[in-house]
Amino acid sequence: MAGNSFGDLFRITTFGESHGGAVGVIVDGCPPRLELSEADIQPDLDRRRPGQSHLVTQRREDDRVTIVSGVFEGRTLGTPIAMQVSNRDARPGAYEHMAHIYRPSHADWTTDAKFGVRNWQGGGRASARETVGRVAAGAVARVLLRRVAGIEVLAWVSSVGSVDATVDLSTVTPGEIEANPVRCPDPEAAAAMTSAIETARRDGDSLGGVVTCVARGVPAGLGEPVFDKLDAALAGAMISLPAAKGFESGSGFAGSRRRGSEHNDPFVPGAEGPRTLANRSGGIQGGISNGADIVCRVAFKPTATISRPQETVDDEGNPVVLEARGRHDPCVLPRAVPLVEAMTLLVLADHWLRQRAVDVL
Amino acid sequence: MAGNSFGDLFRITTFGESHGGAVGVIVDGCPPRLELSEADIQPDLDRRRPGQSHLVTQRREDDRVTIVSGVFEGRTLGTPIAMQVSNRDARPGAYEHMAHIYRPSHADWTTDAKFGVRNWQGGGRASARETVGRVAAGAVARVLLRRVAGIEVLAWVSSVGSVDATVDLSTVTPGEIEANPVRCPDPEAAAAMTSAIETARRDGDSLGGVVTCVARGVPAGLGEPVFDKLDAALAGAMISLPAAKGFESGSGFAGSRRRGSEHNDPFVPGAEGPRTLANRSGGIQGGISNGADIVCRVAFKPTATISRPQETVDDEGNPVVLEARGRHDPCVLPRAVPLVEAMTLLVLADHWLRQRAVDVL
Amino acid sequence: MAGNSFGDLFRITTFGESHGGAVGVIVDGCPPRLELSEADIQPDLDRRRPGQSHLVTQRREDDRVTIVSGVFEGRTLGTPIAMQVSNRDARPGAYEHMAHIYRPSHADWTTDAKFGVRNWQGGGRASARETVGRVAAGAVARVLLRRVAGIEVLAWVSSVGSVDATVDLSTVTPGEIEANPVRCPDPEAAAAMTSAIETARRDGDSLGGVVTCVARGVPAGLGEPVFDKLDAALAGAMISLPAAKGFESGSGFAGSRRRGSEHNDPFVPGAEGPRTLANRSGGIQGGISNGADIVCRVAFKPTATISRPQETVDDEGNPVVLEARGRHDPCVLPRAVPLVEAMTLLVLADHWLRQRAVDVL
Amino acid sequence: MAGNSFGDLFRITTFGESHGGAVGVIVDGCPPRLELSEADIQPDLDRRRPGQSHLVTQRREDDRVTIVSGVFEGRTLGTPIAMQVSNRDARPGAYEHMAHIYRPSHADWTTDAKFGVRNWQGGGRASARETVGRVAAGAVARVLLRRVAGIEVLAWVSSVGSVDATVDLSTVTPGEIEANPVRCPDPEAAAAMTSAIETARRDGDSLGGVVTCVARGVPAGLGEPVFDKLDAALAGAMISLPAAKGFESGSGFAGSRRRGSEHNDPFVPGAEGPRTLANRSGGIQGGISNGADIVCRVAFKPTATISRPQETVDDEGNPVVLEARGRHDPCVLPRAVPLVEAMTLLVLADHWLRQRAVDVL
Repeated sequence: MAGNSFGDLFRITTFGESHGGAVGVIVDGCPPRLELSEADIQPDLDRRRPGQSHLVTQRREDDRVTIVSGVFEGRTLGTPIAMQVSNRDARPGAYEHMAHIYRPSHADWTTDAKFGVRNWQGGGRASARETVGRVAAGAVARVLLRRVAGIEVLAWVSSVGSVDATVDLSTVTPGEIEANPVRCPDPEAAAAMTSAIETARRDGDSLGGVVTCVARGVPAGLGEPVFDKLDAALAGAMISLPAAKGFESGSGFAGSRRRGSEHNDPFVPGAEGPRTLANRSGGIQGGISNGADIVCRVAFKPTATISRPQETVDDEGNPVVLEARGRHDPCVLPRAVPLVEAMTLLVLADHWLRQRAVDVL
Repeated sequence: MAGNSFGDLFRITTFGESHGGAVGVIVDGCPPRLELSEADIQPDLDRRRPGQSHLVTQRREDDRVTIVSGVFEGRTLGTPIAMQVSNRDARPGAYEHMAHIYRPSHADWTTDAKFGVRNWQGGGRASARETVGRVAAGAVARVLLRRVAGIEVLAWVSSVGSVDATVDLSTVTPGEIEANPVRCPDPEAAAAMTSAIETARRDGDSLGGVVTCVARGVPAGLGEPVFDKLDAALAGAMISLPAAKGFESGSGFAGSRRRGSEHNDPFVPGAEGPRTLANRSGGIQGGISNGADIVCRVAFKPTATISRPQETVDDEGNPVVLEARGRHDPCVLPRAVPLVEAMTLLVLADHWLRQRAVDVL
Repeated sequence: MAGNSFGDLFRITTFGESHGGAVGVIVDGCPPRLELSEADIQPDLDRRRPGQSHLVTQRREDDRVTIVSGVFEGRTLGTPIAMQVSNRDARPGAYEHMAHIYRPSHADWTTDAKFGVRNWQGGGRASARETVGRVAAGAVARVLLRRVAGIEVLAWVSSVGSVDATVDLSTVTPGEIEANPVRCPDPEAAAAMTSAIETARRDGDSLGGVVTCVARGVPAGLGEPVFDKLDAALAGAMISLPAAKGFESGSGFAGSRRRGSEHNDPFVPGAEGPRTLANRSGGIQGGISNGADIVCRVAFKPTATISRPQETVDDEGNPVVLEARGRHDPCVLPRAVPLVEAMTLLVLADHWLRQRAVDVL
Repeated sequence: MAGNSFGDLFRITTFGESHGGAVGVIVDGCPPRLELSEADIQPDLDRRRPGQSHLVTQRREDDRVTIVSGVFEGRTLGTPIAMQVSNRDARPGAYEHMAHIYRPSHADWTTDAKFGVRNWQGGGRASARETVGRVAAGAVARVLLRRVAGIEVLAWVSSVGSVDATVDLSTVTPGEIEANPVRCPDPEAAAAMTSAIETARRDGDSLGGVVTCVARGVPAGLGEPVFDKLDAALAGAMISLPAAKGFESGSGFAGSRRRGSEHNDPFVPGAEGPRTLANRSGGIQGGISNGADIVCRVAFKPTATISRPQETVDDEGNPVVLEARGRHDPCVLPRAVPLVEAMTLLVLADHWLRQRAVDVL
């Protein structure tokens, strides 16, 4: 089926181009009778919003969400929840000089190869603006998971370029993350990241980095082997994000260099079943949550849009030199944090509902 | 929906426990009139098979595949292709002493948490034996992709523990990969890996590692943004494999440490559209193939089964010391190679068919 | 998965309550480069619109559609096409006296039983207003099918209450159907139907009837046995329409009373393969189109809303007498015609695209 | 996606041709810990089996089912339940003379039109033998529904040709249905049907008829508007059966001729919510079960295979006269009864599980 839906039971479908009339999402499968209003959605959108700090793109969008359907007298109806955000500060003119140029490491050429047509205004559907719908839907999932399971999901920037943060996964708080615009809870690293991003911007260049995400309070038993394992669902969700190039669960790539005797997580008796002493499993064993914190990391490449001249070709195959204009992020990491949270929330909401149909007898 | 199906148009559903009567797969959606016989399937199964070398588990299964339906007079019918492999050397008795013990970093506890019941014989459905169906289906996808698109998929072991191979992605051949039982085309590294695996086995311990996979001849245009991007589909596919903990596409985690000006892939004019000078994109831009080689890497943790005594708990919550018996792989990497190829082939077959419904006008 | 999506490759998701802010649809999977504008959508919406004649509900909605995304410079992008229609003449107050009453043969009680909450304003999501999105999406399918296959779909009212029309399936034209507000191409029957509907309205009562639908120009080979047979897909599509209670393909129920020798459709040589002399198969054999006209019939019950007093219960279980107010259709049949067409178009578009992934070698 | 899967949460995938090695099914999504053995499956297969009486085809198949996976120590594991039945009395030779002939009103021509290849042995996948997998899966659903909800599903033959039975829907018992080989609980009608079938057989001809199905004990609230309404799901399920041409829910086509005041089902207070005095709704309102008996009817055309000479064409377009041989049913109705039950059971099991994900807060 076409690729703009995600999830089975908590299922979202997003729509909208960067410079079209609006972007948005339909959430189908949110259980009825959940208290929900736009005030639950807006804060996450505000964390994703352009222009929120000097570190990100200065496009001006207030990204005010409207719930169009599915909520009545403050509660969900069990019917589709349609949510929408208008595109206001669209400046298609700023892209006209690039209408026929394939920007390096962007989706311009591949979009043409696939569809034979593209909206060149701001990347069209390949713009990060597409993620507005994901974040709005993720906010609904957050309300649901908090209510039914006490699940809390939080993410932060753990590296930018070569700057790595030191963070205690089990104690870090949302307040620490939001304490600075780079969304890194290690203040020293945050300062170095900020400085690195500012330098890159001055150089007309860009940086990548890594987001780490933790989900706390996830009950044991979520995940649908063998293909919709919880970590497989997270991996697919994360790599579907713009600019994502890598995913790790638990010990990840580093774990592949250890011996089994150093890597296995010993079990000890716990209050609600076995508990692991370490968490190299990242809260998932055999694709099913084990009751420990879910931990994963997502690598984002440096923003493809840079101001430096770049060699490339146009859509008639001629070599050209591109000098990009248009507003963009020198580093997507601070705005990627709510995206990673949103995808984690969507996966967990879907799997939490799916487990309802397993745990029956 | 339940988690034992994969793909949309080239859709597989697997079944079978490690020590049940049989394991197998139904492939639904393979186009009709494709020449296909068991001789096309068996070689990939033989590469996955236990007992194929001294480096892997010594369970004896000839893993002889039977095509039960969907093929008539040597060609596919367009109806479901059911394939089946009997379990012969099942020794459930070898697992009886572990029937009530939760093995560390295995799926024992999480299976109980999810289902409230489990087949403790050889891990049941959580056994790597489950992948027989994937490999058989992947072999069908291989025949299809070769026929319709000239696509070739090959994978190899690029690291075991701390031993890293040096491999030229664009020239490596299947013959070089199969030249040694560890399936590493760098002979020197292969020797070091073999020695490391033998040492680990002697120590009653285990090793992890990384498999690299390349798909050549993939046309530009495959992938279904925004959620079923080609790299997102690969990520989900790979992390669904037993013991997989990490996925990278193109430059991956290392790319996140570079600047955009170093990371972007410049375009130059090519015979069939723009061509990238470098391939940090791993053949995928904006979730759509760009015509270059698809490149990805998958990290596998060290085998959870080790012979050393381990602290754990039983299913009544009592602390116990586990001394594992039963046949197992000291390192899954050599047998993981055909699994990674199979998942890549399944993703590509599915997306190749999906693009047929896009490229219409 | 939740029930507000339809189709696999040409996939729609609808949203919106009767008296919420808007109703609409996302079409995901429409091929790119199709010329499309709001002018292609509006005519079908106008045929579904309330207030279009004295035979239907007098609720005033101009039902002006806006394409929010997925179309650029007059052509589809291959990205989700979101379309929306505002609710203007919503009069929720008119329903307040029924907020706690379960109207007989409506969805009030079952909605409460399922969701534990309901939007009592005009039936909420159970209102026929929900079908706006279906009709808009069906209009897109119509443009696609005309362009790629020359397929034409038309439906008409073949009975109202006890009045039956006589119509030649192979020659009837859209002009004949639209010649009168009841949408019956048999003028004599149309007059009798009109009179019957007016009488029913005067009596505070309602009528049901049957819509017949024909699809011409459908190539042989569409349909996906064994569960997504073309007739099975049509059956599910039709019975999902509000008030639909019966479906027949080809000879239908009457055919079940014939002998095989009278019922089989003899083949004769034709220009594009075998041709059937009769069409008791309704253009579908073994669930696959055979190149003849697709023919089906859909039975609609009499409108559940009537003005006469009815015995029922409230949501606290007390017996009450309901005297309905609010605007409603004394007979849904004239407005059901575009709905039946829309569902047929959606099924055909989906199956036409699916066959692209079958007819490969 | 390809068409051999049915259901979302209780999902089945069937495989197998009439004369291939075996036919069977995978059930994915059956909840764990359900007591299940082959003895639960065999009785329904025996009711579907050829050769069970003189009224049906004399092909000899004992149709002995094997559970290949998913059950351990007498209980389901929550993993895929694969079930298989071997084809024993396959006589492909009996079909050789028809290998190149398109039998009228069979799927021969449409299969070639779709797939460009077909297994001409006994109709291949288009044979009614395909339904073995459905019935086996339906039997699992029956065990589940009885256990979790006390739901009972039973069907019977309500007409054969022009012979109509008179049956009290609310009191008819399985014993009355199975009292005669025609599976009609009205003994007088059963005798007339038997005689009609025997006459048709002697004439080398065939008969059609109608099966009525009732589901008792279905809780209010099942069904997923707006596209997966309970009656829409039943309609699609039924019309996917071989030879099915019509579907009615509740009052069906006859109801479309009544006035609303005669047709609405008045509510009265009941022990578990409102209760309808009549059941013209067939237990479903707005696509959601209302707690009353679910009632539907399915029309089957007369068997396409008859012994009389018929005009048709071969696969090179030449006119030929077909004189069919091979064993076949003069009337499929008696064997259609377990098929209709199976599809009803599958729909209800799926929707019962889906409601688990709705009724959460």
